[in-house]
Amino acid sequence: MTEKRLLVVSGTHGNEINPIWAVEKFKKLINLQSKKRNLEFILGNPIACEKGLRYIDVDLNRSFNVERTKLNENFYEISRAQYLIKSFGVNGSKPCHVAIDLHTTTSSMGTSIVLYGRRKKDFYLAAILQNKFGLPIYLHERDQHQTGFLVEAWPSGLVIEIGPVAQNHYDSKVVEKFIVILKFLKEHFDDFNNAEINLPREICVYVHQNSIDYPRDENSNINALIHPERINQDWYALKKGDPLFLNMKGKSILYEENEIRYPVFIGEAAYREKRIAMSFTKKENIQCSVDWIKEFQ
Amino acid sequence: MTEKRLLVVSGTHGNEINPIWAVEKFKKLINLQSKKRNLEFILGNPIACEKGLRYIDVDLNRSFNVERTKLNENFYEISRAQYLIKSFGVNGSKPCHVAIDLHTTTSSMGTSIVLYGRRKKDFYLAAILQNKFGLPIYLHERDQHQTGFLVEAWPSGLVIEIGPVAQNHYDSKVVEKFIVILKFLKEHFDDFNNAEINLPREICVYVHQNSIDYPRDENSNINALIHPERINQDWYALKKGDPLFLNMKGKSILYEENEIRYPVFIGEAAYREKRIAMSFTKKENIQCSVDWIKEFQ
Repeated sequence: MTEKRLLVVSGTHGNEINPIWAVEKFKKLINLQSKKRNLEFILGNPIACEKGLRYIDVDLNRSFNVERTKLNENFYEISRAQYLIKSFGVNGSKPCHVAIDLHTTTSSMGTSIVLYGRRKKDFYLAAILQNKFGLPIYLHERDQHQTGFLVEAWPSGLVIEIGPVAQNHYDSKVVEKFIVILKFLKEHFDDFNNAEINLPREICVYVHQNSIDYPRDENSNINALIHPERINQDWYALKKGDPLFLNMKGKSILYEENEIRYPVFIGEAAYREKRIAMSFTKKENIQCSVDWIKEFQ
Repeated sequence: MTEKRLLVVSGTHGNEINPIWAVEKFKKLINLQSKKRNLEFILGNPIACEKGLRYIDVDLNRSFNVERTKLNENFYEISRAQYLIKSFGVNGSKPCHVAIDLHTTTSSMGTSIVLYGRRKKDFYLAAILQNKFGLPIYLHERDQHQTGFLVEAWPSGLVIEIGPVAQNHYDSKVVEKFIVILKFLKEHFDDFNNAEINLPREICVYVHQNSIDYPRDENSNINALIHPERINQDWYALKKGDPLFLNMKGKSILYEENEIRYPVFIGEAAYREKRIAMSFTKKENIQCSVDWIKEFQ
């Protein structure tokens, strides 16, 4: 293949601090080892990072499909998204072809991959990561309420999402998990032309179906929390009759549908304002295709 | 005793949301059961709660010894502290004698008690809680860098501190832990005049010695994180040679002192800005005294 340049983004959300640390540590590691310049690193939202906030005006990781308008022209994240594309987009001054965006969550997601839509190049990346580390893949698609993710602005890319970890809380175990992934990706890109690429037969993905909000009272205040039996049970099957929420009076609110779902981002702190208590996914196995490799080259 | 009125404060830090929920749930519970009016509930920092921030201008829980000056006269928390004392202080319009301030931490503190100084009335409260639930007690004293805590503005009071839980992240298991404590305290105060009070022979407290900051580089940036073997090890003994931090190059920074210490608030997210990576405590057993009961009556 022609050289693929990889963009690694940390601090897209300014209160997710472990990826920032991981990248700094990783940069020190590779500076000692290699002179290859197929990697770019950038802090997604430097002002939010400085302030320890998720964002300043709007969520940067929902701002990559947003046109500048009179209403938002002064929004920091809108101009930051445009700057990132101008600098590191495929036609940018330091062009990159693949974007890896590093995030943490307060949910018990473990180390996981998030894909946006069914791009073959992304499937390729997800497949090699799942094959190597067995990571679960959340395929986010057909969700009109959540669009404009950073990696969608590049021809290929995905999110590495690790949790649970509190916002603004350093955890060196979480840092090490990011570094393991970054090392693998770097080696893979360094050796891409020489290496024999073995895709697995299939990958298992958890496909986004819908999100549910917390139950709310007549004043829109949340009046039930994630049920104690549901909290921290990301990726586990949810069946009819299983508890979802527990309200203030101690009454359980159950899952009433017939379809088995696999909830993710259960109770994520940053999603309350988006009115998401958890997202429901459906398990799907996708046959791997040699097309994915060709497409990627 | 003359009736003791108890003030329960939640949301002193606006991003610690589980205590707020616990209090709402607890209020519903007791409204069904009892008409006794020996309890007041108040949201410490309502504007910070609305915004999901620890505070607006300054930390409310360090603002109870702060005089109003030209410099801080517009600080929300300074006026809020004065309002709380005017409303619920011993000479306030709804006078309370004991303040229980409910907090969460991102550190692995479990359910714990924080005392400020060696007030006999506080020892009494801490003793009955430790006797009932075996909770560890952090005795914060002689720390000139951290003063002006809420409960110090009442004749008696303590903090219930539960962790780990992320800021702005609901966890109904944490909520239940607060409710267990609130139930016990309410029953204890309801029955105080009739009940036989049995103090344990002694209580075990972890006495504050000093706090340490993260290692920093010449630009004051943090350049080492809590060591993976130290994170989440609150209350566990730290001995000479044990690892404290791990720097970016993978080098461990060790504890070099001879005295055994018991670190608490290890890696607490909100304390980075206070330049506290953890606080060191020393174990001390304190003989319980009948004076404590008399003092409390």
